[in-house]
Amino acid sequence: MSDRLVELARRLQAACLARGLTLATAESCTGGLVSHAITEVPGSSGYLVGGVVAYSDAVKRDVLGVTATMLQAHGAVSAQVAVAMAEGVRARLQTSLGAAVTGVAGPDGGTTAKPVGLVYVAVAGAGAPEVRRHVWPGDRAANKTASAEAALELLLAHVEGLPA
Amino acid sequence: MSDRLVELARRLQAACLARGLTLATAESCTGGLVSHAITEVPGSSGYLVGGVVAYSDAVKRDVLGVTATMLQAHGAVSAQVAVAMAEGVRARLQTSLGAAVTGVAGPDGGTTAKPVGLVYVAVAGAGAPEVRRHVWPGDRAANKTASAEAALELLLAHVEGLPA
Repeated sequence: MSDRLVELARRLQAACLARGLTLATAESCTGGLVSHAITEVPGSSGYLVGGVVAYSDAVKRDVLGVTATMLQAHGAVSAQVAVAMAEGVRARLQTSLGAAVTGVAGPDGGTTAKPVGLVYVAVAGAGAPEVRRHVWPGDRAANKTASAEAALELLLAHVEGLPA
Repeated sequence: MSDRLVELARRLQAACLARGLTLATAESCTGGLVSHAITEVPGSSGYLVGGVVAYSDAVKRDVLGVTATMLQAHGAVSAQVAVAMAEGVRARLQTSLGAAVTGVAGPDGGTTAKPVGLVYVAVAGAGAPEVRRHVWPGDRAANKTASAEAALELLLAHVEGLPA
């Protein structure tokens, strides 16, 4: 666990608790690392309701409600699916915020259009969803860590922009 | 990430792929560490369908199908609920195997009957479910790691007992 991840999780917890916000996560390529980082901090049950590790497309569809049409049109690694995962987990777990990560951790699965290291992170809340695209240069473990950090950074910036 | 966790995940992946088995995880106190460890190994999408981080009782009920009656009778940290979580995620994600962890990671939340460090790990498959009780002596991070290792060890022993 990177120190940076735990520090981001501490700051996110303080920011969410100060605003009475709850959170759910939907993770593909990070495989649970985002929620693992969040739950390293004592008291995280005060705002983290839970999460879904949507490794297969079936889970993205059946649990998170991402449509087959969207998966076919844009692919699982896309800004559209990242937003749909964040919105889906927020609706399914009835939280203030949903956060999602989908990407290609590597070493396999990359294409010219969607190379290893490509990841989208998204946050859904009461207003318009936010999504960011990154391409990481690392190996599988490094790409997972960088993606989880990016998700927590986007969440933190989103929450700190809301009234306390 | 402990070397032991990744080594267990490597062996579990080989054992599941050799038998054509699929897996889903349901995690409470480990917060996603089990699926994070599993997905550190390239090719894990060949058998891991997904997982549910059931941090709140609401997620244990609404997503995993653990009954309110069972939660009230035995508490979220119990052998019965661990088995119900494993069976619930197996049914929900339609996999060969379901694995679950529920416990008290600490530093808060312990009682005389259910102290900090108490954890139940369970595996559900085609036959009778298996469940183990542990009490770890560590801090929050150490208890999460020990619990994830225990879950992977129980899964591995279960799978290696099945015909290849």
